[in-house]
Amino acid sequence: MSELQAINVAVIGANGYTGSELLRLLFGHSAVRVVSITSRQHEGQKLSAAFPNCFLSSDLVFEALDVPVISKKAQTVFLCLPHHESMEVAAAFLAQGVSVIDLSADFRLQDVSVYEKWYGAHTQKGLLKEAVYGLPELHRSQIVGKKLIASPGCYPTSINLALAPALKNKLIELTGLICDSKSGISGAGRGAKAANLYAEFANDFKAYGVVGHRHTPEIEQELSLLAGETVVVKFTPHLLPISRGILSTVYAKVKSGVSLDTIQNAYEAFYQNESFVSVLPSGGLPQIKAVVGTNQCHIGLAFDERTQLLVIISVIDNLTKGASGQAVQCFNIAHGFSETMGLTSIALFP
Amino acid sequence: MSELQAINVAVIGANGYTGSELLRLLFGHSAVRVVSITSRQHEGQKLSAAFPNCFLSSDLVFEALDVPVISKKAQTVFLCLPHHESMEVAAAFLAQGVSVIDLSADFRLQDVSVYEKWYGAHTQKGLLKEAVYGLPELHRSQIVGKKLIASPGCYPTSINLALAPALKNKLIELTGLICDSKSGISGAGRGAKAANLYAEFANDFKAYGVVGHRHTPEIEQELSLLAGETVVVKFTPHLLPISRGILSTVYAKVKSGVSLDTIQNAYEAFYQNESFVSVLPSGGLPQIKAVVGTNQCHIGLAFDERTQLLVIISVIDNLTKGASGQAVQCFNIAHGFSETMGLTSIALFP
Amino acid sequence: MSELQAINVAVIGANGYTGSELLRLLFGHSAVRVVSITSRQHEGQKLSAAFPNCFLSSDLVFEALDVPVISKKAQTVFLCLPHHESMEVAAAFLAQGVSVIDLSADFRLQDVSVYEKWYGAHTQKGLLKEAVYGLPELHRSQIVGKKLIASPGCYPTSINLALAPALKNKLIELTGLICDSKSGISGAGRGAKAANLYAEFANDFKAYGVVGHRHTPEIEQELSLLAGETVVVKFTPHLLPISRGILSTVYAKVKSGVSLDTIQNAYEAFYQNESFVSVLPSGGLPQIKAVVGTNQCHIGLAFDERTQLLVIISVIDNLTKGASGQAVQCFNIAHGFSETMGLTSIALFP
Amino acid sequence: MSELQAINVAVIGANGYTGSELLRLLFGHSAVRVVSITSRQHEGQKLSAAFPNCFLSSDLVFEALDVPVISKKAQTVFLCLPHHESMEVAAAFLAQGVSVIDLSADFRLQDVSVYEKWYGAHTQKGLLKEAVYGLPELHRSQIVGKKLIASPGCYPTSINLALAPALKNKLIELTGLICDSKSGISGAGRGAKAANLYAEFANDFKAYGVVGHRHTPEIEQELSLLAGETVVVKFTPHLLPISRGILSTVYAKVKSGVSLDTIQNAYEAFYQNESFVSVLPSGGLPQIKAVVGTNQCHIGLAFDERTQLLVIISVIDNLTKGASGQAVQCFNIAHGFSETMGLTSIALFP
Repeated sequence: MSELQAINVAVIGANGYTGSELLRLLFGHSAVRVVSITSRQHEGQKLSAAFPNCFLSSDLVFEALDVPVISKKAQTVFLCLPHHESMEVAAAFLAQGVSVIDLSADFRLQDVSVYEKWYGAHTQKGLLKEAVYGLPELHRSQIVGKKLIASPGCYPTSINLALAPALKNKLIELTGLICDSKSGISGAGRGAKAANLYAEFANDFKAYGVVGHRHTPEIEQELSLLAGETVVVKFTPHLLPISRGILSTVYAKVKSGVSLDTIQNAYEAFYQNESFVSVLPSGGLPQIKAVVGTNQCHIGLAFDERTQLLVIISVIDNLTKGASGQAVQCFNIAHGFSETMGLTSIALFP
Repeated sequence: MSELQAINVAVIGANGYTGSELLRLLFGHSAVRVVSITSRQHEGQKLSAAFPNCFLSSDLVFEALDVPVISKKAQTVFLCLPHHESMEVAAAFLAQGVSVIDLSADFRLQDVSVYEKWYGAHTQKGLLKEAVYGLPELHRSQIVGKKLIASPGCYPTSINLALAPALKNKLIELTGLICDSKSGISGAGRGAKAANLYAEFANDFKAYGVVGHRHTPEIEQELSLLAGETVVVKFTPHLLPISRGILSTVYAKVKSGVSLDTIQNAYEAFYQNESFVSVLPSGGLPQIKAVVGTNQCHIGLAFDERTQLLVIISVIDNLTKGASGQAVQCFNIAHGFSETMGLTSIALFP
Repeated sequence: MSELQAINVAVIGANGYTGSELLRLLFGHSAVRVVSITSRQHEGQKLSAAFPNCFLSSDLVFEALDVPVISKKAQTVFLCLPHHESMEVAAAFLAQGVSVIDLSADFRLQDVSVYEKWYGAHTQKGLLKEAVYGLPELHRSQIVGKKLIASPGCYPTSINLALAPALKNKLIELTGLICDSKSGISGAGRGAKAANLYAEFANDFKAYGVVGHRHTPEIEQELSLLAGETVVVKFTPHLLPISRGILSTVYAKVKSGVSLDTIQNAYEAFYQNESFVSVLPSGGLPQIKAVVGTNQCHIGLAFDERTQLLVIISVIDNLTKGASGQAVQCFNIAHGFSETMGLTSIALFP
Repeated sequence: MSELQAINVAVIGANGYTGSELLRLLFGHSAVRVVSITSRQHEGQKLSAAFPNCFLSSDLVFEALDVPVISKKAQTVFLCLPHHESMEVAAAFLAQGVSVIDLSADFRLQDVSVYEKWYGAHTQKGLLKEAVYGLPELHRSQIVGKKLIASPGCYPTSINLALAPALKNKLIELTGLICDSKSGISGAGRGAKAANLYAEFANDFKAYGVVGHRHTPEIEQELSLLAGETVVVKFTPHLLPISRGILSTVYAKVKSGVSLDTIQNAYEAFYQNESFVSVLPSGGLPQIKAVVGTNQCHIGLAFDERTQLLVIISVIDNLTKGASGQAVQCFNIAHGFSETMGLTSIALFP
């Protein structure tokens, strides 16, 4: 890929964790040139001021978020902004002809009434029909050439990839689905709260948002699409004393007469052409460490005959396949690049 | 308590994690004198040889396991031995008139056929009827004066305390119970395996024994007793990258018409006189760190209206309330001491 | 000790880490009744509001810092306040006849010009001569009956205990002393800074304050007293990815002709009657974990013949022997209690 | 680089931590084809059997170490073997015309008497003159085209890069050099010892090998070369509760009249053309996290006027720049590839 063909991109709100992860990946992408980064807090400072001792070789300087200025430089923008703020900025860039990959929740829910119930008023309803839900394994063909991509949430990615083959192949009952998820604390963002200090959170583990976490409707939207009817889940998030990674343990009642072999085969078939999803061999159980820093999702299956429950366990890195890596994957698909460009790194061991 | 009234105790198999935790607690117990510790591996060495730089002020030396010799010195022995080995040693000490508190699984299951299905042959069947399952909150009166106490497993303690009030008060359905448990890695014991090395397990998280973990029958025995009929559960253990602590997330279908207030009140009533179980105020969620190093169990409740599921979350320290602390609690009850003797320490913060 | 003899104490500024550690220790002290805790941020809230799920059984409520009100209730106050603020509050309590144990730096430096060079203006100079530097192993007799005790800093405690026997016995050269210290991050306090978030600090390690850390003059004051002449040290602090604990590696040139045996014997003799300092047997090296949560200091010695350097390694818990535990130790001495009251807990293993 | 030009390589002893790190890097190297991996323990098993859930997409199978067989396939072998074993295997491969990059200590010390004093008998003395010490920043030109490269130790790399500009420019005294190093525990290797279990080592920190660590002569060999005369250092290693990374704090007396500016400029000039060494701007202090998983070395400088000591702090990843990454860097130089091939990854943040 020659330098001339590279796409110029900007990262808006680059001083958070999805921002630093995007930059790490984009700097290693041979068809991308990062031409602008923005941050209110760090405007005028070098990139390394926001991430001490990281990105030392970059000369990028944080700019203000000036849409006309950035639109002259960038063909695609990645938005790492809070909900609500993101939708306004997305509309402004789209109006300038710039493609948008949005990492917020603002364009993930197709039913605006569901969005407004969980997040509050939506001011860019007209754009919802332009958006695609950027989970490539389920919506790849719709992503091609798209100008507005809603990059999925981290928990929904881990759960929807875990359940997709079972629902698509009608192997499980639709009621009684339980998703017990455990996430590294980077998912809580970079806001400085005492409870998230190293001294207080080290050696701890806890649930949070046990009722009514906002990722629930996003999970249910995709599962319902897969099942062809409304699916309701119990989703319980927990915080792990690690920086990165999500493991979801999903419980589903197996339909009568369906064997574990059938299920294992269905999962392997469903994902056989995917670069970023691996179904572990029968009996294998995933672990977070094997996917940290990568765009991979590992899935393992177990069947408990005593209770007729299928236990599906998936792992991803919440900041990579659960956020910035998936955004780059969508970027590759939208532009017709190889889907794995910039996403080939392997997890550290140990 | 004068020195003369102190009970002489021995810790058999004192070189593992339940052994060190017992010694930590017993050294702070004003009515106990530790007169003997045994370890094949460390025979003839000082206690601090097995736990470098710990217990520096103790002059105890590991002995061989010689039942007649130790029986002359000790009135009660705590057994920290592997399954099967423990039952033989228990029988030998009981024959000498020495009281036994057994931390293995050998006397936990009252139905010997269940034991033999999950653990193999039982050679001391006659003793099973002498044993009491040492979960004081459920069996306190039976523990008083008992000479053979089976100290419960860590996962069963966390789960059975979480479910007891709901089952006893018939607030939940008996089918579809799911227990998703997460344990610190000390539960895997002191055996040196590469997968448990710091370099490999740090920053990791994974499930294990997803089907058929041996704590399942112990959980079901107690839940069935509480419910008055057979209860089957799906139990899934995971390993947390922390040394100590278990958090169990338990899912149960609430019976029609039962409110969260009713449930909260029932839990508070059930545990109101307990020194070691705290039901958090409505909306409170437990965290592992608050109980590490203590004999406490914290329980929090949430009700998801969309799915009619009650989510019960409990935390304990797997080595304290989940093992050695509970053993000391039973010891106190058996001897008529105050139940909290030696067990009053408060968790470190931070 | 009967309830009537208990001392009523207050903890001023109880919502930080030295505050929670003091409360943990004082709640287990049989001759203390905590009658008041203060916090601007948490005024009117229960203690457990500041330390979620901790201290659940306490009914204490945070009060405003009203010196006359608290002086009616408390005989001794522990001050966990910032520098400068502490000196004013100390003066006010002393004027009411209340004893003060101050955990700030305000009364640690006897030479006010040194204080003012490193910390700024001192407004209570007259009180400096009333104060005693509360390192019991060096100043025990002066602490007895004292009404104003300056509890030492964490780094100085670790370093001064490491060097005291060598200086007192004139075994080492006074020039070229290097103190390379590594502290758990709780030493950075409870202020919410992004750099101290779990996600950012986990798996990290770094030096800070490499030139001019404020603990330097406190270290040099005590070492100079021990040596009988001015001692200058190079002190370099680092931050460890653990919550608690300090390990100091101290390098000193051994005087010609002095053997390691001589040094080992001098250390053992110096600390032979101390409850809280252990000199490890020859060849032993201390580790932080063995003292976490305890008031212990462990010291190990090594001699490198190639360079004639003595390497002295000491470990303490920065919040216990390095702060709140030492304050309680001073409290015990000042009141004529057994020095170990409330301070007998043993470190967790594992 | 076309596939045809790729170099076929083998990794001998691929089941340890330097092995997995080499494979991670080599799989991302566009001019390398890994054609063989060996392991006694895992012979006949797939690569992923040794590193669970890692390298899932590789079909490589561990082979026995059969030099003639592997010599037919591989042009270069990386040896990840214990000392002494490595020298024999190196000789055998060289005899077959295969290039060797040895990660053991066997060919690092040019003076065989020094090797034999610290490691025991050397059986391949004749090869020592063929070997080059593979620290590219000091010996780049000698590495070009070399068939036997001794990849440096992790501690020596961190210390020698920290001191090289100061020694080369004669800015510091040669006596009194103190190197206080702190390493992640992966440096202790994959052997399963109880002391290195997660449960025991988490939250701990300790020194080890305080006198006589075997990396001392390797450090002194290179420092003496730089200084042009014999240099002796005090080197003290410690173990950090992290998996990867080394921070060395080096203390050196500055020569009279030399300013920090002079030193800073000398360091920047010395490393200005280096891809893998960054001198932080004046006042900057390095941190381990910024280099984990990368081949980078960051160096920060501070000058303490009170003691006239220069404090030089360097950080590397012990498995990358401290072992496998540096081996790949040498491989690139030896073969005339761009020095950064396969080594461009950026550290994770957070």
